[in-house]
Amino acid sequence: MSTISIIGSGGMAAAIAGRTAKAGYTVEVVSRDPAKAQALADKLAVGATTGTYGAIPAGDIVILAVPYAGAASVVADYGDALDGKVIIDITNTASPDLTSLVSPAGSSGAQEIARIVPASAHVVKAFNTLFGHVLAKGGRLDAFIAADDPQAKARVSTFIESLGLRPLDVGGLHMAQTLEALGLMMIGLAKNGAGTWDIALNVDIG
Amino acid sequence: MSTISIIGSGGMAAAIAGRTAKAGYTVEVVSRDPAKAQALADKLAVGATTGTYGAIPAGDIVILAVPYAGAASVVADYGDALDGKVIIDITNTASPDLTSLVSPAGSSGAQEIARIVPASAHVVKAFNTLFGHVLAKGGRLDAFIAADDPQAKARVSTFIESLGLRPLDVGGLHMAQTLEALGLMMIGLAKNGAGTWDIALNVDIG
Repeated sequence: MSTISIIGSGGMAAAIAGRTAKAGYTVEVVSRDPAKAQALADKLAVGATTGTYGAIPAGDIVILAVPYAGAASVVADYGDALDGKVIIDITNTASPDLTSLVSPAGSSGAQEIARIVPASAHVVKAFNTLFGHVLAKGGRLDAFIAADDPQAKARVSTFIESLGLRPLDVGGLHMAQTLEALGLMMIGLAKNGAGTWDIALNVDIG
Repeated sequence: MSTISIIGSGGMAAAIAGRTAKAGYTVEVVSRDPAKAQALADKLAVGATTGTYGAIPAGDIVILAVPYAGAASVVADYGDALDGKVIIDITNTASPDLTSLVSPAGSSGAQEIARIVPASAHVVKAFNTLFGHVLAKGGRLDAFIAADDPQAKARVSTFIESLGLRPLDVGGLHMAQTLEALGLMMIGLAKNGAGTWDIALNVDIG
């Protein structure tokens, strides 16, 4: 199987890395803090490696699993090292008080990230409506994706399917605005009507 | 059972009115065009009535089931006739090309409507993430609600439950921003990943 690179070492990075390793991919974990990357790689199944922060990632698919507030600086640190990559933006753009979104009006975190990656890279929004601990439990969850480039979207869709999730395309990258709002709604639902963070959305079709 | 007033006579008005009548309420249908209100009332079960557009609605709960673009003028036409009412805003705030939301940045259609209703009225966002034809088919669908006033929210929650739906509170009325984005996402999902408008979201809890 091919290599998937994950930049980040937090809860979501661990959850996605866990499912990715279990699916048989080689997972390259990269963090600004090499010790954190190593710790996550050590927790994963055979085949996990660590990469050098800022160097060209081993995977053609690179999962940007860092807080949104730090995403722009990570992309800047990588610069041309992201040439030609399919970048999965999983960021949650909720404000610190979890009542609103920090992305600019009429845009989304994903669109802002797309503006600063190399022109040959493609950004796909995905995973941001799933809670890490729910994702880590397994199960065929629904995973919404938004992207402009059809090939990048198809590759991420195949990757998500291979993790045992159901990819659901909601449209172009501008639809990341709705997915990021949905991420915030999941938080609102957890704190209010559901009363638990053990929640996942699924779509009844037909 | 008590009376529920519905202002509007389109597909969503008919779908909600149908379930409301079936649940045993008296449904008061009101439209700018009395013939349309009468036609919808005639289609409903025994107990449906029509009301006079702009006059005090018979129901304590008033469902504003008109296009968002016309909602402000309806509220203005009613003025103080909405004093003390619980107003359910079901509007879809998608742009005509279905790619973005028309509500002002940092606000929602529901919040804009809340600004212009009488101070004694309470606005609750609900039903906007459900497609009318799916709602009309029946079934225990998930219905997300957002509102600031706890009593108004509790009343709408009880009403929604009585229709055989599962009410799910996502938070204060500012969360209508996320529900309206979710409404747009449902359209994106229907046009893309699902490939059908026969879709509904549900939440796996726990």
